[in-house]
Amino acid sequence: MTMMGYNGIGLDVDLSRGSLSPFPLEEGFLLRYLGGRGLGVGWLTEREPFPEDPLGEEAPLIFVSGALNGSSAPTSGRFSVTCRSPLTGTIVSANSGGFFGPALKRSGFDMVVVRGKSPKPVWLNIQEGEASLHEASDLWGLGAAAATERLRNLASPQSRVLAIGQAGERGVLFASLVNDGDRTAGRGGCGAVMGSKNLKALVVHGSRTFPAAKEELYKAALYQTQKLIRSFPVTARALPELGTPGLVKLMADHDMLPHRNFQDVSHRPEDVELLSGENLRKTLYVGPTGCALCPIRCGREIVVQGVRGGGPEYETLANMGANLGIYDLQEISLANYLCNDLGMDTISLGGTLAAAMELFERGVLTVKETGGIPLAFGSKGFLCRLTEMTGLREGFGKILSEGSLRLARRFGVPELSISVKGLELPGYEPRATTAQALGYATSPRGGCHLQGGYAVSLGFFGGSREVDRFLIDTVAGHVIDQQDSGCLSDSLGLCRFASFSLGEGEFARLFAGFTGAEIDQTELQDRACLIQNQERRFNIRAGFTRRDDTLPERFFTEAIPLSGKNRLIDRELHFRPLLENYYRLRGWDEEGVPPAPGRKE
Amino acid sequence: MTMMGYNGIGLDVDLSRGSLSPFPLEEGFLLRYLGGRGLGVGWLTEREPFPEDPLGEEAPLIFVSGALNGSSAPTSGRFSVTCRSPLTGTIVSANSGGFFGPALKRSGFDMVVVRGKSPKPVWLNIQEGEASLHEASDLWGLGAAAATERLRNLASPQSRVLAIGQAGERGVLFASLVNDGDRTAGRGGCGAVMGSKNLKALVVHGSRTFPAAKEELYKAALYQTQKLIRSFPVTARALPELGTPGLVKLMADHDMLPHRNFQDVSHRPEDVELLSGENLRKTLYVGPTGCALCPIRCGREIVVQGVRGGGPEYETLANMGANLGIYDLQEISLANYLCNDLGMDTISLGGTLAAAMELFERGVLTVKETGGIPLAFGSKGFLCRLTEMTGLREGFGKILSEGSLRLARRFGVPELSISVKGLELPGYEPRATTAQALGYATSPRGGCHLQGGYAVSLGFFGGSREVDRFLIDTVAGHVIDQQDSGCLSDSLGLCRFASFSLGEGEFARLFAGFTGAEIDQTELQDRACLIQNQERRFNIRAGFTRRDDTLPERFFTEAIPLSGKNRLIDRELHFRPLLENYYRLRGWDEEGVPPAPGRKE
Repeated sequence: MTMMGYNGIGLDVDLSRGSLSPFPLEEGFLLRYLGGRGLGVGWLTEREPFPEDPLGEEAPLIFVSGALNGSSAPTSGRFSVTCRSPLTGTIVSANSGGFFGPALKRSGFDMVVVRGKSPKPVWLNIQEGEASLHEASDLWGLGAAAATERLRNLASPQSRVLAIGQAGERGVLFASLVNDGDRTAGRGGCGAVMGSKNLKALVVHGSRTFPAAKEELYKAALYQTQKLIRSFPVTARALPELGTPGLVKLMADHDMLPHRNFQDVSHRPEDVELLSGENLRKTLYVGPTGCALCPIRCGREIVVQGVRGGGPEYETLANMGANLGIYDLQEISLANYLCNDLGMDTISLGGTLAAAMELFERGVLTVKETGGIPLAFGSKGFLCRLTEMTGLREGFGKILSEGSLRLARRFGVPELSISVKGLELPGYEPRATTAQALGYATSPRGGCHLQGGYAVSLGFFGGSREVDRFLIDTVAGHVIDQQDSGCLSDSLGLCRFASFSLGEGEFARLFAGFTGAEIDQTELQDRACLIQNQERRFNIRAGFTRRDDTLPERFFTEAIPLSGKNRLIDRELHFRPLLENYYRLRGWDEEGVPPAPGRKE
Repeated sequence: MTMMGYNGIGLDVDLSRGSLSPFPLEEGFLLRYLGGRGLGVGWLTEREPFPEDPLGEEAPLIFVSGALNGSSAPTSGRFSVTCRSPLTGTIVSANSGGFFGPALKRSGFDMVVVRGKSPKPVWLNIQEGEASLHEASDLWGLGAAAATERLRNLASPQSRVLAIGQAGERGVLFASLVNDGDRTAGRGGCGAVMGSKNLKALVVHGSRTFPAAKEELYKAALYQTQKLIRSFPVTARALPELGTPGLVKLMADHDMLPHRNFQDVSHRPEDVELLSGENLRKTLYVGPTGCALCPIRCGREIVVQGVRGGGPEYETLANMGANLGIYDLQEISLANYLCNDLGMDTISLGGTLAAAMELFERGVLTVKETGGIPLAFGSKGFLCRLTEMTGLREGFGKILSEGSLRLARRFGVPELSISVKGLELPGYEPRATTAQALGYATSPRGGCHLQGGYAVSLGFFGGSREVDRFLIDTVAGHVIDQQDSGCLSDSLGLCRFASFSLGEGEFARLFAGFTGAEIDQTELQDRACLIQNQERRFNIRAGFTRRDDTLPERFFTEAIPLSGKNRLIDRELHFRPLLENYYRLRGWDEEGVPPAPGRKE
């Protein structure tokens, strides 16, 4: 390795054989795929056979530190987990903050590729470059929190732990990975893949440091980055003060907060008030928490019923609250604690419960199937029980544990699953923002706001960055920019929230300064295109076509009052040009197929 | 009129007959074209026969107040002058700040359409709704400043005056209109059209006020607008502190400051320092000045050789300075005084001098033709003399007064005119920013940064608004957004600099609140599309085709070192996709022809 900022070494773990094999990571490959999501995607698509069965023994599960993990750049603590999703069948890279990413990198490995299936439950320990597998039979069945505590005692107290809870063990299709108690690699069911391998946790520690390759360039970029984060209102004030729950009121004001499985966006103002970040701050809130190297600290520490823990994020409030007609911060916070301990994605759980509630409202689903639970929208007091049943796959929870699409199909009304490619939509109404609608339809992992570009943010920033929420003609370009920028954040290991204040110019200068790579902003953007083209090729190989780049039927056919007008997304007038402009600007053909590898890559 | 915020009355002035006829402006037409540039374009294209000869008697010259003139919105003092340009043959709307626009509106007329040609020089007086024509033979031959002073004494001391200087009288093809001494409707030669009609000046005064139609909505929008302008760094600090001259160093740092007729961007650092806004502030600067209702106050009042006046803007420093190899603030400031008094566009004059200097450098042009003036790049001491000769059309100045394209053609080297559609480029190197390159190629009035979308700004804002300067695929959408937003600023009568901090959401709320029109941001954006489609249709009628949407040959064939690499705009790899994406996103066909009027309009 002449390039700096990396270990240049990955760890191959074959759980069937119990083998642990370090392997070199070539400089060209690192420069091609950077790290985090990019490197995970590059590895899965270039170096592994296509995993026919996401839960099969041969399917790889890839843990990658972000390229800037180990640097001092603000928010540079994020890492990715890449595999084929058992929930959607697409490629998925789940992303998490916390402190695990930098710890993995400092332990001596840039990435860990896990394959095979252990005959018995095990955990993987990496301490200062030394890796070992240990039996985990006595940990199996524990929640993530207890397992984490036990593993720190076993390995070393400074260790960072990435674990599954019971949901991952039992194959909940939207099971997550949990680190630092409440930071999760949430979406797409990576936890189920990990559980299927009988792997309970990764435990890492190391003290390697990474000096910047070009100190002067790096320092200048660092200074500018810090200054921008301090000076933009979103990162300087809004997120530190209220965290993501501050979005509740903003989204409600913009007619974007979903209600009753996305049937409408009509909440009573007093309900919104109850659910708001402002109210959370006044009631359960104890103080802010932050991930590695984060000056923003958007995390909320709360106390509920005497128990201290991580507070619900906006997505949890929207999907397990507003969209279900539930506005009780305490009930949602307790269910959120459960999700963090069982290891489940709150967005998919919320979306699945919302679909169940609409089925119940229609009389398709009754108390007979639910085991006596009245699943009406707004019914109070059942959220924790439903969460537990799902995470443990008990009773009706077994059906819920397969996600909204399988549920709605089972009852003959697949259109009630508000998902794209089988992944439940997060808490942003797409009829209220064409950018986000297109983002959902084109996100590589399905109905996701983040890999869809967090394009919704274009609609409510105010001032000169605002893009009209109902814009059609030019919005594809904005969505692509947002997706590209997000893909680079995910690969460099930076937080999406920092991107509210940073541009790709800063990314390029930080990366070039830290690693010494001769790369500028344009070339970095080409990397983002390559990574997303590879994701697209994987999905095409998995059988996805243009027909899957769509939205739930509801949004095309049911108009709801938004900004004083009845709006829907007209399939021909709105959606077709959005998608076709998107394909064209991506350089994909009319069926959404990228060019053969090589062009501009 | 049930819609508020307008007079609903225009004034038709036929100078051949000496007639003055008020006419009603229908609500539907106002709502369709808003005001300022939009209303001028709408009137010229829908209500007037196509003017075959821009300087012919029948060619109309249209003065229009911005839709928000007369409101209290920040920077809402701008107005437009629309006609067919004698320099380019395209449609042109020249835009100016100062105090004339609101005064025109408060005088009782939203717009004035001037046609015909007066047998003798005249001036038009409008006082409190009463219009009259007066002989101006004793004013003919005066500079704009003296004429303005005399006319205020004649009409009323509070009057605002929009006048031509000697350049307009004598038909300099890039003659401007001057108001308030140093605010000019500069580009495209509207001054020559006014001179061809024997019209020296418009003098206006009135005291009509315009209460907001929806007070609550208007006040909320006003509050938000003021807050955004106060909080964004560009409008809160950069422009107030250094004015547009603050761009000199920024552009030089970004390799965007042109040199030697755009042959390169290599200036000595000490020269840039001399020309900089920082140095202007340290030397000639007296204090800031501002247009009507402007909280930014980017204007610079200076004193040179004991004479107080308006300081040079960035464009003047770049085009009559850096691009000529001249870095003397004093010499440029004096020449700028002359341009303001003679009434000439400093960008086109600078571009024409630059072309002449390159012809001189090549030996095509010699001291024989220039009347003994050595026209080498960087030659000091001749700038004022050349300016005067051009404005008065004396000697070699007569040739210069026809602009760079006619000059370069005359000497057989048309490619040395750095112009698009015959309009000289402003001070931003297009090889250094693909967005601006596309903006230049597609601006309706030719090589213009403003109607080209001021897309260059995308490249240097830093932080999350930064768009890579060498981006290709998605940049057309950004350029269109910028052009649309700019078109709305020009129509509403707001300043482009306010748009650094405002979005079209603010535009819509201000306009709806002020006029009571039921219109939202999306519909306002549709107005921007209509206006630009009408401009495009006019230009097609004038004989322009896709072939004219191009750049000077230099930028396709001569690579210069930028950001450490040799860059040019490759005609096939870069420029073709830029233009084709642009057409497509605009909804134009492959030849750049808009659809038949009506669709979405």
